[in-house]
Amino acid sequence: MPLRPDAAEKRKHIVRTAYRLFKRDGFHATGIDKIITEAEVAKMTMYRHFPSKDGLIVEVLDWRAQRFKRQLNRLAGDAMTPSEKIAAIFDWHERWFDSPDFHGCLFQHALAEFGEPAHSVFEAATRQKRDLQQRLQDILAQSLPDDHAEHVAVALFMLIEGATVLAHMGHGKAAIVSARSAATKLLGSAGALH
Amino acid sequence: MPLRPDAAEKRKHIVRTAYRLFKRDGFHATGIDKIITEAEVAKMTMYRHFPSKDGLIVEVLDWRAQRFKRQLNRLAGDAMTPSEKIAAIFDWHERWFDSPDFHGCLFQHALAEFGEPAHSVFEAATRQKRDLQQRLQDILAQSLPDDHAEHVAVALFMLIEGATVLAHMGHGKAAIVSARSAATKLLGSAGALH
Repeated sequence: MPLRPDAAEKRKHIVRTAYRLFKRDGFHATGIDKIITEAEVAKMTMYRHFPSKDGLIVEVLDWRAQRFKRQLNRLAGDAMTPSEKIAAIFDWHERWFDSPDFHGCLFQHALAEFGEPAHSVFEAATRQKRDLQQRLQDILAQSLPDDHAEHVAVALFMLIEGATVLAHMGHGKAAIVSARSAATKLLGSAGALH
Repeated sequence: MPLRPDAAEKRKHIVRTAYRLFKRDGFHATGIDKIITEAEVAKMTMYRHFPSKDGLIVEVLDWRAQRFKRQLNRLAGDAMTPSEKIAAIFDWHERWFDSPDFHGCLFQHALAEFGEPAHSVFEAATRQKRDLQQRLQDILAQSLPDDHAEHVAVALFMLIEGATVLAHMGHGKAAIVSARSAATKLLGSAGALH
């Protein structure tokens, strides 16, 4: 049953508030009471929408993953070459690392705090990571044989994840410069530079 | 003042117990009471050794970082070429990803849970990461000009960090194969393959 418009709006508001707090302070360190206070909702409203904290975390991650996908979709024009599309993904990360509220990757952090593979939060986090890896692979498959595309996609994915760790340590500029340069070399040697 | 031998042994025992729990369950999710129970020490013993949980976390991270350094030092023989030394670091990671109690990187997890750069735990985690990056750079500087060595070291560091994330997601084999292949290509194109 779809939510009434005001209930749907309230639910989104809770998700956005929780996102902001989880990003800044972490998942375990952010109590439900803190989210209730910051979102200025009634306790009952919170528990009606999100009977469990894990459920709220999964919804925050899925919402954030959808936003990420839409942003990358907008960046990738049909007329772009594979290497232009890859460059656009690095551009996105460069802007992200530079933004004042960059706190590292929420999905990496979810994997860190919920390390049990069967946990719903762990699953939500890996879904997003697999999506990014698949996106890289789909782009590369336009100019490389499939097995080769997968191999290079994994390498680019690792460079992006590693760059995000380095950026979180405060070295975003060095991370993005080295990641781009390494990616260009890998694409070049794979014959995917067109 | 150095601790008496039995006190020093007890302190080490607390550190090792906390390490095992932090690794498996995370830092915030592991309460001090749980560590006291698992280590089978008196509450007073715990608080005498570690008046604050943050202090205990920092000591766990520093202890683990020292062990990692000693392990890598043992792997790197003086007679080895730079590329053999790099390969030995990848070997270490391959064995680690394969070990039954692999739960991802404790230092990455510390960055995730304590994202504030001025926090003592964040600082301890970045110390270990910087050490690894510096080790890679020192190895590469044996066969590359300094600025070039730094650049390639950052790329290798990102591949290792990214491989660790991927391994934590359950894809250790693909991670290590792609990371090795990418590293070989980067070292080759940098002229450091000897």
